[in-house]
Amino acid sequence: MFEVAELGHTVEKSVYREKSAELRARLLTIQSQLKVCPFSVIIIISGVDGGGKGDVINRLNEWMDVHYMRTIALGPPSDEERERPKFWRFWRTLPAKGTIGVYVGSWYSDPIAQRVYQKIDNNALQNELIQINQLEQLLSDDNTLIIKCWLHLKKEAQIDRLKALAKNPATKWRVTDKDRQHLGLYDDFIGVAEQVLTETSKAHAPWLIVEGSDIRYSSLTVGQHVLERIEQHVLQYNNGLSAAAEAEPPNSRVEQYNLLDALDLSLKLNKSDYRKQLEKYQGKLNELSRHALAAKRSSILVFEGWDAAGKGGAIRRLIEAMDARHYQVISIAAPTDEERAHHYLWRFWRHMPRAGQVTIYDRSWYGRVLVERVEGLAKPQQWQRAYSEIVNFEEAMLAHGIVILKFWLHIDRDEQIERFKRREQISYKQFKITEEDYRNREKWDDYQKAVNEMIARTSTSKSPWLQVEANDKYYARIKIIKAYCERLEKMLDEINK
Amino acid sequence: MFEVAELGHTVEKSVYREKSAELRARLLTIQSQLKVCPFSVIIIISGVDGGGKGDVINRLNEWMDVHYMRTIALGPPSDEERERPKFWRFWRTLPAKGTIGVYVGSWYSDPIAQRVYQKIDNNALQNELIQINQLEQLLSDDNTLIIKCWLHLKKEAQIDRLKALAKNPATKWRVTDKDRQHLGLYDDFIGVAEQVLTETSKAHAPWLIVEGSDIRYSSLTVGQHVLERIEQHVLQYNNGLSAAAEAEPPNSRVEQYNLLDALDLSLKLNKSDYRKQLEKYQGKLNELSRHALAAKRSSILVFEGWDAAGKGGAIRRLIEAMDARHYQVISIAAPTDEERAHHYLWRFWRHMPRAGQVTIYDRSWYGRVLVERVEGLAKPQQWQRAYSEIVNFEEAMLAHGIVILKFWLHIDRDEQIERFKRREQISYKQFKITEEDYRNREKWDDYQKAVNEMIARTSTSKSPWLQVEANDKYYARIKIIKAYCERLEKMLDEINK
Repeated sequence: MFEVAELGHTVEKSVYREKSAELRARLLTIQSQLKVCPFSVIIIISGVDGGGKGDVINRLNEWMDVHYMRTIALGPPSDEERERPKFWRFWRTLPAKGTIGVYVGSWYSDPIAQRVYQKIDNNALQNELIQINQLEQLLSDDNTLIIKCWLHLKKEAQIDRLKALAKNPATKWRVTDKDRQHLGLYDDFIGVAEQVLTETSKAHAPWLIVEGSDIRYSSLTVGQHVLERIEQHVLQYNNGLSAAAEAEPPNSRVEQYNLLDALDLSLKLNKSDYRKQLEKYQGKLNELSRHALAAKRSSILVFEGWDAAGKGGAIRRLIEAMDARHYQVISIAAPTDEERAHHYLWRFWRHMPRAGQVTIYDRSWYGRVLVERVEGLAKPQQWQRAYSEIVNFEEAMLAHGIVILKFWLHIDRDEQIERFKRREQISYKQFKITEEDYRNREKWDDYQKAVNEMIARTSTSKSPWLQVEANDKYYARIKIIKAYCERLEKMLDEINK
Repeated sequence: MFEVAELGHTVEKSVYREKSAELRARLLTIQSQLKVCPFSVIIIISGVDGGGKGDVINRLNEWMDVHYMRTIALGPPSDEERERPKFWRFWRTLPAKGTIGVYVGSWYSDPIAQRVYQKIDNNALQNELIQINQLEQLLSDDNTLIIKCWLHLKKEAQIDRLKALAKNPATKWRVTDKDRQHLGLYDDFIGVAEQVLTETSKAHAPWLIVEGSDIRYSSLTVGQHVLERIEQHVLQYNNGLSAAAEAEPPNSRVEQYNLLDALDLSLKLNKSDYRKQLEKYQGKLNELSRHALAAKRSSILVFEGWDAAGKGGAIRRLIEAMDARHYQVISIAAPTDEERAHHYLWRFWRHMPRAGQVTIYDRSWYGRVLVERVEGLAKPQQWQRAYSEIVNFEEAMLAHGIVILKFWLHIDRDEQIERFKRREQISYKQFKITEEDYRNREKWDDYQKAVNEMIARTSTSKSPWLQVEANDKYYARIKIIKAYCERLEKMLDEINK
């Protein structure tokens, strides 16, 4: 899920100057409207060490009217606070209606730290998260607007940052033993953060993940997100709640992620390398899938991607290596009557594999947040809440020991039109191209935005999205089969440990 | 919370015959409307052994059109089921839109049984409940109507039932070792059930607790509840969701509880006994409260009751025994401006006692589900969700080791008017009687209904409601001070263990 914040975003000084002036004006305007609204705004700024939390908060304070905004920096609890239930310190600092409270150090700080330092186990963490969700639900039921931003830095960036600080005599003092200790725990921290963010991203209180290496980028991104969320909330209040329920939630920050644009589509394999590697990995997969069957561990492989991105071809190369008695390929088209008479996840529960079996989905439940979102087949609330429904669905499978791997096959627009044209010239592939395919192309940007958000919200270490550079089919097929082999190997290693 | 189902409800045969015929006709009518609605209905019948689950389900099947209703009786999972994630068996049996699925043996069965038999710990149970809540939330977001009924039998009734069965040669075989074992675990079972019901009673999927000793009563109560819930859901669907949000949820079963009517208001103490006992318990309380202070364990005492029920007098008798430095009495009137600018629970978090202190509330957060409900000051969704908000609030206190005890002081209408008149004649008490008091009297039945539901939804073994027969002030005061003493003693015993 943090992939979206490891792309090296930066903002030029001149751009920053212009955008921040505009942002500031709009923030002040919306604050003046907020003052008379019967709800408060909570902004939580959290994230990794060195992610620039302090800088972002300082910028927010510069931009906004601090008469109606308060920064709440919570360190270790006071005597007074320790003598009361742990949420007391948060309740006493909650902003009044019409005002904004910015939390640095929030109800998230302790549970994350305690879990990373192994002071609490996973069940205890889960219980902390229930209480957090209850609190946020209660506030949001009372119309409080909750904005949560997570500032992320990749490990290398964190190392570089500490090195740079240590090198400079003027900043050397800022590097403490605790910083070094935290760096050693980076991977644990990210694992816990992923879990916490996944389980506390609700439609009414979603997390925004922001790359923290460039302060101009991160402060502008947070600032604009804050602006849009407040503008929308005020609008919803003024126009009545029923209008609000139909309004599309703001996601304008998400499109800046450019997760797909960051892929290197020039990656390719020549035919002879492809053949060699295909033989190697098909052999490996054959062996591994027999072991998985013996261990009664099922797999679910999800294929999503642009039209003509090569899903079918990639799936064929996988199943060539497997025993037809033990896998099934399910192509998801329009639901049947019977399926339509149930919850949208029902058809996927139906096909749940028995122990040891492999189920390959050519398109999947992610249609809810892709085609159904973009084509307006699902209402905004429906696809918005689908992220957590899907995460819960996959967690039920993970808890049962099922291996999940999800592939997004990415090609660019030029490659797609080339393939469409080629297909139209090959008689047995003509049926694959319809007018709808051309129509879908027109919504490329909307789909791209939806894909970005989907990966940000549903890619977890246990159920990851693999983005596959698929302009070259050979490269894509090998990347996929290799990734599945590695996943199976890892699972089998864990079993045998 | 099970108090409401231990009152000895019965229904006469002739009444049953008449009512069930009427019920049947209405159930068939609503089923014919349901057929064309785009949502399904899930009915969960659960409860204690011998609570008559089978009987109730048989009656439902007799009354309704079984072409559009299916009973799903789930025993131990099959091979097929064990090879899939545990919820698979529920998903495969979910009713299609327009139809009804009646579950006996549901997603609640395993978690409760495993916890009672100590196969899972409390954190693991909590995690099961999260998954259940997620499932019900997901279904209800998809407009599925979820109706949950819990059939309760008090321990004595369960013993009598087993004895009766064992005595009759024709039914002796029905009493198994398992029954006897279950009876031995009755208290554990009830404790777990209380927790499960509390944490899974949501506004969209509340539990109805039904007394199970008389099958005519229980089947009629369940049948009428099912009817009303479906009627309301269909109505909401036909009239649009915004109308639905404003509609009052059905509670007609609740008024049958008669929890307050079951109190024996003739209980009294003569003056000399009162004086003796008061002296005894005040002495005891003085000592106990000093121990509690030393142990840094706070108390929260909540007083609710009819106007003129004697809350003030009872509170005075308590504090006479305590040190003024260590308690505070908080009278809850209309909120201040500042309080109004926050969530309704904020003012109560404010007064959270420091370690070892005692806070006595003369009226409390329960105003949300009493006066605010009855007078229409809170919207139905607001007071409906308040039950779980309040339970969570009190759980935060309990988790911190705070002792909570809640008193409902009950008098009857005649006694109230007597007291009003007496007050008007005593100059220094005249200010206590206003026109509003007379107006409130007119809503006695609405208040009674609200009190019944409040106790059913928020009385737990750790944070119980004590119903105080208060027609006689002496009796009431002693019952209260004694109960608080016992609660403190129990807490101190647990600490010293």
